[in-house]
Amino acid sequence: MTETAQTKLTLAQFDALFESLKNWGVWGPRDEKGTLNYITPEKIRAAAALVKTGRSVTMEIPVNTVAGPDNPNPAIYYMNTTHDVDIGSGELRFATDFLGIQFHGDCHTHIDALCHIAYKGQLYNGRPASSVTPRGALEQDITAYAHGIVGRGVLIDVPRYRGVKWLEPGVMVTAEEIEAVEAAENVRLSEGDIMVFRTGHHRRRLELGAWDPGYTGEGRAGLDPYSLALLKTRKVAAFLPDGDGETVPARVEGLLYPIHPLQITAMGLVCADSLQLEDLARVCEEEQRWEFMVVLAPLCLPRATGSPFNPIAIF
Amino acid sequence: MTETAQTKLTLAQFDALFESLKNWGVWGPRDEKGTLNYITPEKIRAAAALVKTGRSVTMEIPVNTVAGPDNPNPAIYYMNTTHDVDIGSGELRFATDFLGIQFHGDCHTHIDALCHIAYKGQLYNGRPASSVTPRGALEQDITAYAHGIVGRGVLIDVPRYRGVKWLEPGVMVTAEEIEAVEAAENVRLSEGDIMVFRTGHHRRRLELGAWDPGYTGEGRAGLDPYSLALLKTRKVAAFLPDGDGETVPARVEGLLYPIHPLQITAMGLVCADSLQLEDLARVCEEEQRWEFMVVLAPLCLPRATGSPFNPIAIF
Amino acid sequence: MTETAQTKLTLAQFDALFESLKNWGVWGPRDEKGTLNYITPEKIRAAAALVKTGRSVTMEIPVNTVAGPDNPNPAIYYMNTTHDVDIGSGELRFATDFLGIQFHGDCHTHIDALCHIAYKGQLYNGRPASSVTPRGALEQDITAYAHGIVGRGVLIDVPRYRGVKWLEPGVMVTAEEIEAVEAAENVRLSEGDIMVFRTGHHRRRLELGAWDPGYTGEGRAGLDPYSLALLKTRKVAAFLPDGDGETVPARVEGLLYPIHPLQITAMGLVCADSLQLEDLARVCEEEQRWEFMVVLAPLCLPRATGSPFNPIAIF
Amino acid sequence: MTETAQTKLTLAQFDALFESLKNWGVWGPRDEKGTLNYITPEKIRAAAALVKTGRSVTMEIPVNTVAGPDNPNPAIYYMNTTHDVDIGSGELRFATDFLGIQFHGDCHTHIDALCHIAYKGQLYNGRPASSVTPRGALEQDITAYAHGIVGRGVLIDVPRYRGVKWLEPGVMVTAEEIEAVEAAENVRLSEGDIMVFRTGHHRRRLELGAWDPGYTGEGRAGLDPYSLALLKTRKVAAFLPDGDGETVPARVEGLLYPIHPLQITAMGLVCADSLQLEDLARVCEEEQRWEFMVVLAPLCLPRATGSPFNPIAIF
Repeated sequence: MTETAQTKLTLAQFDALFESLKNWGVWGPRDEKGTLNYITPEKIRAAAALVKTGRSVTMEIPVNTVAGPDNPNPAIYYMNTTHDVDIGSGELRFATDFLGIQFHGDCHTHIDALCHIAYKGQLYNGRPASSVTPRGALEQDITAYAHGIVGRGVLIDVPRYRGVKWLEPGVMVTAEEIEAVEAAENVRLSEGDIMVFRTGHHRRRLELGAWDPGYTGEGRAGLDPYSLALLKTRKVAAFLPDGDGETVPARVEGLLYPIHPLQITAMGLVCADSLQLEDLARVCEEEQRWEFMVVLAPLCLPRATGSPFNPIAIF
Repeated sequence: MTETAQTKLTLAQFDALFESLKNWGVWGPRDEKGTLNYITPEKIRAAAALVKTGRSVTMEIPVNTVAGPDNPNPAIYYMNTTHDVDIGSGELRFATDFLGIQFHGDCHTHIDALCHIAYKGQLYNGRPASSVTPRGALEQDITAYAHGIVGRGVLIDVPRYRGVKWLEPGVMVTAEEIEAVEAAENVRLSEGDIMVFRTGHHRRRLELGAWDPGYTGEGRAGLDPYSLALLKTRKVAAFLPDGDGETVPARVEGLLYPIHPLQITAMGLVCADSLQLEDLARVCEEEQRWEFMVVLAPLCLPRATGSPFNPIAIF
Repeated sequence: MTETAQTKLTLAQFDALFESLKNWGVWGPRDEKGTLNYITPEKIRAAAALVKTGRSVTMEIPVNTVAGPDNPNPAIYYMNTTHDVDIGSGELRFATDFLGIQFHGDCHTHIDALCHIAYKGQLYNGRPASSVTPRGALEQDITAYAHGIVGRGVLIDVPRYRGVKWLEPGVMVTAEEIEAVEAAENVRLSEGDIMVFRTGHHRRRLELGAWDPGYTGEGRAGLDPYSLALLKTRKVAAFLPDGDGETVPARVEGLLYPIHPLQITAMGLVCADSLQLEDLARVCEEEQRWEFMVVLAPLCLPRATGSPFNPIAIF
Repeated sequence: MTETAQTKLTLAQFDALFESLKNWGVWGPRDEKGTLNYITPEKIRAAAALVKTGRSVTMEIPVNTVAGPDNPNPAIYYMNTTHDVDIGSGELRFATDFLGIQFHGDCHTHIDALCHIAYKGQLYNGRPASSVTPRGALEQDITAYAHGIVGRGVLIDVPRYRGVKWLEPGVMVTAEEIEAVEAAENVRLSEGDIMVFRTGHHRRRLELGAWDPGYTGEGRAGLDPYSLALLKTRKVAAFLPDGDGETVPARVEGLLYPIHPLQITAMGLVCADSLQLEDLARVCEEEQRWEFMVVLAPLCLPRATGSPFNPIAIF
């Protein structure tokens, strides 16, 4: 198992990998659902059949309003009224509030729309990057997932497999290790599955405090770019990591974040970022199973490149 | 079936009704889950068992950024970057954006926290209204639902029963009519169920355009305050209306919005507002069944009085 | 005096007018100050010499948080803390709040940066419109005015001249009428002056309520495009109207808002929008003079296309 | 001259100082202008007479959108449209944007309303702290300064006097040192003057980078609480510091920020925070005079506890 990249990929090697992962045209030239197409009604029914003990578990980090090294754009939250304000209805009162959030970044649990990433001027399916305008995206926006995403979730719990609390920043997970984790958990990522990928990122934050997970800081643990071939072969439908899937520093020359374009732009893979998987890991341990029903319900936010959300696992 | 209130309730009658509906103390003095307590693991398992055809359906109105008579606080949505901004990573680009939303009101699909409503200085369970501070709620905030709400949904489709497109503003639905709808749909609201209550509010908006649903305008269709006794008897766990459950003008003297305090403050009922039930109504018709699995995933927003959300029905 | 446009200008006529008004290159190829260059230190000294009675007057509409036909983007204003929140400093308390504002539009008093307007792909001075990026303006942003704008203000009070409370929407003011107002007020717009242009727009709003001043509504009173030749000849430095200078409907075929590109893009004229000139008009009447010192202090907001501000007149 | 507090004040001593500085009732029981009352028309005329060389200088820090140790609430700034968005008006385009700002704090130049501070449940003039509600202030809000503040500014440049670039955090300036600076600059703070107080805070930030100026960090340079007696005696009308006037750590036991309640609550002194005085200090040096006209134009923001603003000095 490779701890850190032994050899860097050149851009040419990256581009070859990009080509090999492409799902462009597979679901038609104007498809906006990408790998969500793998989730057939049958898969949803099978996912629901996993609900046995009736427990539901959040995979969201509580909305964070405190600036820090991994949160340069803290959410803003204000009360609008509290119960001491007379609303002209006798002794009845309503308290209301406001949330503002630039939800991408390393500290807000969110899902990416396919339009979020462009590589060489193109979005997934070869659509032009210019379709994301200053007023928002004209296609591949988050409303493509408006009816929610329902499927079988499989937790790939790498720290558990390794017997550590978390992977240190910079550590890279290979396809071989993913398969080893599968074996240890007695699960196998299959067509239409939602891969929940745990590096322990959030646990490290809870125990050690926030750090800068970017190139100006310590970095983060994530995937080996070549591991994505496994996800393609297995026809994984969605990817829910506790970091954002990227290893920082990355294994590619001249490209800081190679995983996102490979997953989103090449594969059309439904991706989320910055999940909180600590509750989930504990429940999987208690249940002694690493598969469960998953329901994702991003806001129906026209033109948006993603959405904050609360991903739910049901056992 | 009563079209509009024949007789007004006095405040004393309202208070008596409030007392009769109270679930205070039922689940302990510091309970923050209210009727969510009705949803046992067994109920969740039974809800999942309803997933047969593998269809999922949103119940959310797309986030609305346009001011109007029912949307005095339009959401704000801005792009932060588009793909023509160099992020220092070669030909890779990220597009990001910002959402700001005062989510209560008549045009944003949202769920209420129990702390949202106070009556006579008290929240649900007799907790002090002052626990909602200018910095947010110290208890009964929306994080009480952080792990999501999963259960059996039952659509009470009143316009379908009446053979109309929608109920006109001011029309009030009684317990008797709810029971008649149940009979017509061959369903029965039972312990732990999520009642989805359709008046056709959003369809009217789609066809006729926005109107002012408040006291300064045309009003809205909703429930008869006395109908809530039925919800209490049946131990309904959650209430998802397409308006907000209120009939405006209301049937109570000196209290503009009687339904909210009865549901939320007295009963501890999990309530949402402003759903879009048109897709759901169509799918129920196609499936010829008015029960389904429901998953609600409000944001885990500490101190908040509610959350925008995308409620999902699964068939 | 022309009440409404008798004859429409063709686009070709508009373009000829645009050419005739151009100040491009006058102050160098990379100038970002435009007509502000007319305000020499001597002009500032002369403006200060107008301060005789020591009265200062706001020209700002109070920040408006209420959506309406002329305010589709209401400002958002929330408290962050009030004095009942303990800040850990004994009996000392700080109350703080938040303002959010999309300041362009018809209801927020604001100043435009030169980059705000593009015509045929060009900003003032022939700079490329693409220099306004999705992350803000790379040149001609509002920080060009960071040190404030100080000069002699001259109120051109058209309703006073006409003996009416306000000009009705659609009414267009010609150069001849501006000269007639000057004569009536015994003032003359001269090099470096700040032209304060009153149509009574805000008074109409105060007395009749808000209306839609756009093409979907009643429109607004403003300038005749040809009147700008007078402003160019006189070397006016800044333009502060109570509407936004535009007559709606406009006198140009195929161009909804001809005044802005002529003023800002062709002339490099410092322009503001949506002032409140009712206090000023009253004070001018009391003082029996229509000239005064003006100080404009837009926020130093890097990359911005303008700023909310409180324009001040001093007598 | 005391570098740091030799002796701490007890709360009782603080309260005695508070009493001795009180201007409550001086201008009537419902006065909302405080020391602004010292600025008579004659003072404004005299201030304007200081305009000799016709230079204007900003005293604002550019709006800061980057989180940091002194900026936990960065401003949010987004484009709404750029010039590539067709607005339905031929080749004419408008670029527009949005600013959101929680303007109090240590990094945004802003002015405080008198309602901003409460001590022992009271605002300036003995008004109840509860008049600042969750929906904003019912009195003493920033609109009390709507017509702008115009007067004579006097720069008290302490680092210049000491021959240092800036005062280090924790350094406290006494009344004696203020008088020594006056002597060195040949100025004297007099009735109705605007005291501009430079510690070099912002220059230190520019040269050394941001630091935490609070109790969790290095602190900041400011005034000795006893120095305020001088400001009261001299009838200073306004106070514009480059930090916020506070010395941190402060010289009072059990009260973290003693200067604000003394200035704002006791004296009714018009106070601002976080100015950028580096341009001003340079111009004063060039002009060899430390007095000038000042114009302050806070936004007319109903209910607000302050406003972001761009303070302007004119020479």
